[in-house]
Amino acid sequence: MSELRQDITTKEWVILAPERGKRPQQKPKTKPASASELPGWDAACPFCPGNEKETPDEVFRIPATDKPSDWAVRVVPNRFAALTTRGDTTRTEEGPFFRKMGGYGVHEVIVDSPAHNTPLALMPYEQVEKVLTAYQERYNAIKKDREIKHITIFKNVGWAAGTSLAHPHSQLVATPIMTIYYHRKFDVAHDYYADMGRCLYCDLIAWDLNKGDRLVVAETNDFVVVHPYASHVPYETWILPKMHCASFGMFPATHFTELARVLKDVVYCLYQGLDNPAYNLVIDSTTTYDEEDPYYHWHIRIFPRLTTIAGFEMGSGIYISSALPEETAGYMRQIAVSCPDDVCIAFKK
Amino acid sequence: MSELRQDITTKEWVILAPERGKRPQQKPKTKPASASELPGWDAACPFCPGNEKETPDEVFRIPATDKPSDWAVRVVPNRFAALTTRGDTTRTEEGPFFRKMGGYGVHEVIVDSPAHNTPLALMPYEQVEKVLTAYQERYNAIKKDREIKHITIFKNVGWAAGTSLAHPHSQLVATPIMTIYYHRKFDVAHDYYADMGRCLYCDLIAWDLNKGDRLVVAETNDFVVVHPYASHVPYETWILPKMHCASFGMFPATHFTELARVLKDVVYCLYQGLDNPAYNLVIDSTTTYDEEDPYYHWHIRIFPRLTTIAGFEMGSGIYISSALPEETAGYMRQIAVSCPDDVCIAFKK
Repeated sequence: MSELRQDITTKEWVILAPERGKRPQQKPKTKPASASELPGWDAACPFCPGNEKETPDEVFRIPATDKPSDWAVRVVPNRFAALTTRGDTTRTEEGPFFRKMGGYGVHEVIVDSPAHNTPLALMPYEQVEKVLTAYQERYNAIKKDREIKHITIFKNVGWAAGTSLAHPHSQLVATPIMTIYYHRKFDVAHDYYADMGRCLYCDLIAWDLNKGDRLVVAETNDFVVVHPYASHVPYETWILPKMHCASFGMFPATHFTELARVLKDVVYCLYQGLDNPAYNLVIDSTTTYDEEDPYYHWHIRIFPRLTTIAGFEMGSGIYISSALPEETAGYMRQIAVSCPDDVCIAFKK
Repeated sequence: MSELRQDITTKEWVILAPERGKRPQQKPKTKPASASELPGWDAACPFCPGNEKETPDEVFRIPATDKPSDWAVRVVPNRFAALTTRGDTTRTEEGPFFRKMGGYGVHEVIVDSPAHNTPLALMPYEQVEKVLTAYQERYNAIKKDREIKHITIFKNVGWAAGTSLAHPHSQLVATPIMTIYYHRKFDVAHDYYADMGRCLYCDLIAWDLNKGDRLVVAETNDFVVVHPYASHVPYETWILPKMHCASFGMFPATHFTELARVLKDVVYCLYQGLDNPAYNLVIDSTTTYDEEDPYYHWHIRIFPRLTTIAGFEMGSGIYISSALPEETAGYMRQIAVSCPDDVCIAFKK
């Protein structure tokens, strides 16, 4: 059984999940396998159709046809869950320095597609939209649990980004605590709102589109794609909805057709421009208990893993990036312009 | 020329150093090369004796003999420095959201030894002591610059820990800002001091030695080695001096003989127990402008890189560790007991 423990020197909570040491690990590669290197179906893959019994019982699916064996997206509990709802969130203390609670929470896997070898970058737009729908369905189902304070949806693509299985999948972790990172990010946004009476992100989007357009990769009707001014890593990419909305769960699903196009186009451009890089994707959303707040603004962050997080970053928390976002954004725009007609359709509008 | 930019959504500073994209990179390996795989001297290595002209001019050395060509430790500016003293720390702003300053600071490389194939884990104790002496000499020389606010000394060992060159070396980065990570860590320690009138770390050491001894890997006259209660990664190891001292620069060098033994023994046990893992080492010290503060306590943190920092850690800041520190500390104690007579001499006392 996992637990959360607090680091008394920083007040950070850490998840200790010894069971996760037993996870299966496919052969490490420095790059994600390309579609041509992988079979379309793998008998040994727990996420491939026909192997559904290898995963815990499904909690959600988007069917492909009426046939029960035929699904487009499946969501299952992570078999090596870092957190489960069996944990107890009561804090227990051993003396003044050791504080812990049970590993309460939710840890799920979203199987993005039945196809073993079709990464998000190469997926049809319709399939990406289904993945987004599954994300939101699970977000909204899980947020009803009052013990849950925050939900993080993320993807690890490629070994250098921490994946352990090649089949395209995403993850959702719901925690009984707000992390220090989000505490800080919400505080900064809240302070701005207290000063200005407006959402920091709404203002930042307007600024980027007007004065910071060298950082803008693409603008569509409802979304803006930027390489942030203070990028942590080369080609860090943010996708921001223009509409103010603090919570990913509250975002109107009517925008998902367009968001699917934008998201796929972004990862397609990274795939083409950086030769199929490992990357992480994270959906940043507000707390689950204050979803309609006026100061936060959900968005997607994507971090290509071209360089290794080293001792200076681990120790000091400062990132050193070897590329300027105004240059990488320009390169992304070039890729979008020169791609085939059937991709980057959101960007070419 | 590099610059620092502030992320307006978190107030973090990020270093943008485009020059560093041009660094030489030796062949990636998932593990550090073992001594037997590397030559003792490599004609192509800029850190090997005889190749001194391949590095910028030396800023410090510890001689091995009277011969000018014969050195034990060398310190040189990083040829691909993330920060230099040519930068200007004046903040400039473009509108309300884009704040930057020049990439002012110091970025040096400590060449730990003339031997290309002798990592810290296998170095003689006397050589480790010389490395520590070089660290402190440079720390104390650089802190005199009033523009510098914080100095981080660190090691990246192995490709998975972010190293680009195999020859044993360390790095020093001096920044004109306090990082958010250290701000928080100092705030937590300061709050404790305000409450209790005592140093958090002094109290934590006393607690660990009494009630938390399952976390203690080793205790010597002047140092304690622990696996922290809320470890971020498996086998995270802290070396804490028992004596209260906020700054690594102010620590009496008379303790360096013992510290060298403790440090080498720790990395030796990790090398033996985890089969030569990649790892990062960081020296945590207070600010350079408040070195005698009563609330902080310098220490060393070591992070083996057995797992990859993935999307959840990157996105939310929460670490998931798959091992319990009370178990890993026990394993480290076993390794120390069963090692040859001429190593772990600090631990066996």
